[in-house]
Amino acid sequence: MRFGRRGPEGSEIPVVVREDGVWDLSPVTDDIDGAFLESGPVGAVEEALRAGRLTRLDDADALRVGAPIARPSAIICIGMNYAAHAAESGARPPRDPVVFLKTPNTISGPYDDVPLPRGSEKTDWEVELGVVIGTRASYLDSPADAAAHIAGYTVVNDLSERTWQLEVSGGQWSKGKCAPRFSPTGPELVTPDEIASTDLRLRSFVNGDARQDSTTADLIFPVDVIVWHLSQYMALEPGDLIMTGTPEGVALSGRFPYLAQGDVVEVSIDGLGGQRQVIV
Amino acid sequence: MRFGRRGPEGSEIPVVVREDGVWDLSPVTDDIDGAFLESGPVGAVEEALRAGRLTRLDDADALRVGAPIARPSAIICIGMNYAAHAAESGARPPRDPVVFLKTPNTISGPYDDVPLPRGSEKTDWEVELGVVIGTRASYLDSPADAAAHIAGYTVVNDLSERTWQLEVSGGQWSKGKCAPRFSPTGPELVTPDEIASTDLRLRSFVNGDARQDSTTADLIFPVDVIVWHLSQYMALEPGDLIMTGTPEGVALSGRFPYLAQGDVVEVSIDGLGGQRQVIV
Repeated sequence: MRFGRRGPEGSEIPVVVREDGVWDLSPVTDDIDGAFLESGPVGAVEEALRAGRLTRLDDADALRVGAPIARPSAIICIGMNYAAHAAESGARPPRDPVVFLKTPNTISGPYDDVPLPRGSEKTDWEVELGVVIGTRASYLDSPADAAAHIAGYTVVNDLSERTWQLEVSGGQWSKGKCAPRFSPTGPELVTPDEIASTDLRLRSFVNGDARQDSTTADLIFPVDVIVWHLSQYMALEPGDLIMTGTPEGVALSGRFPYLAQGDVVEVSIDGLGGQRQVIV
Repeated sequence: MRFGRRGPEGSEIPVVVREDGVWDLSPVTDDIDGAFLESGPVGAVEEALRAGRLTRLDDADALRVGAPIARPSAIICIGMNYAAHAAESGARPPRDPVVFLKTPNTISGPYDDVPLPRGSEKTDWEVELGVVIGTRASYLDSPADAAAHIAGYTVVNDLSERTWQLEVSGGQWSKGKCAPRFSPTGPELVTPDEIASTDLRLRSFVNGDARQDSTTADLIFPVDVIVWHLSQYMALEPGDLIMTGTPEGVALSGRFPYLAQGDVVEVSIDGLGGQRQVIV
């Protein structure tokens, strides 16, 4: 099942996206939030569709596509989780997952313009597999227990200001990760019954030119290990968003220029859809 | 004015704490949250008291003291913000504020027990001045603009697991900062008309023995600089909590043992009150 949100920023309505159209989920839930995802909603939505309780949106194409989840309680990120990206960043592959956080107010829609932050000289793209938590995860016994806590997968662009992340931060990355609209998310939240996370092709493009092209099969720490590992250090809440790390091909490598006003960034993951942002 | 929250975890009611008692704020607001703080509530609460709209809680002493603010959208922390603490941590004082984040679900009441995280060997205390944001702060022009965005001050204990923060983290501190109940907050949120942040004595004790004893006059980056500086890198939301850094005297220094089950931690700031946690 594919969940989404449509409408103006801050007043999106929840939808389910199907081949036969986009259906308004408002009769089932107010939002695609932790409470909804925690309830194990696929069956309830199927039942509502069967019972004719949902209305198809005739004007779906005219509506803004919001992030497919409400603002989470936390955005938790895994750094250096592809060996080739660690190398291009001047680091060795980590022995343990590297964890940092973004503020949840960075979330924006997948096609929203992204303002270049004031004073930014090194704004960079990062396509990543996003994992959304379904039920609270704390002290899981093993990676095999992770699947039961995952609501679904989505595309994220973990935008980063490298001067702020690396040069004026004392080494703590979050300073370059939290500018407004630095976490485009979506277009859809795809439930695990529709897709596996283990071998998904991720790509990014700037002004149509290829940048990143990899697969989640190259993740150093795969999704189930990430969720299990994180749960030893913090409680993951329903609706929380995990960004699993980015592959090689970012501007930090020195091979490509950083983003400038007017640039168009596209990121996509096969099976999950694509994003497109204009840098303004 | 002194705001607080009373009652069982997750269902606290908002209160105003005065010399003549603890008054139920429910007729004015559902919670001490961003929407309430953004409204500039002091005048409205004074008016409600004058008009006799509030009820004094007869059983205030029997009620649990919750954190004085609802779960914020973000907890933003400043690291190494006292020169002597930077030295005891093996670091030089930073040239720019060092920023890291804690997950908002770490907030707990000031007298709640704190579970030693599973597998923890180096859980440490950190008394800090907490600053709560009143109105959204983005790209402030100067530190002089910060005061208008501050709702008030509180006491926080920025509990930290040093192995997780420093040894298995790849250098990113958040991994050791987010265990359940790692951010005791309160007992009160004190509005700026009652207290200035510039010279407040902070202390911590373990089992009654003094640990930290310093003053916010020794902050490398004072509160107004912090709020202004952060606003260049991220948007601060109403209700967000900033932890401004801890002075010397933590276990990381090597001078004191780390926390063990049964230990009693007390942290206090003159004018803002004190906390007491049992490690369980």
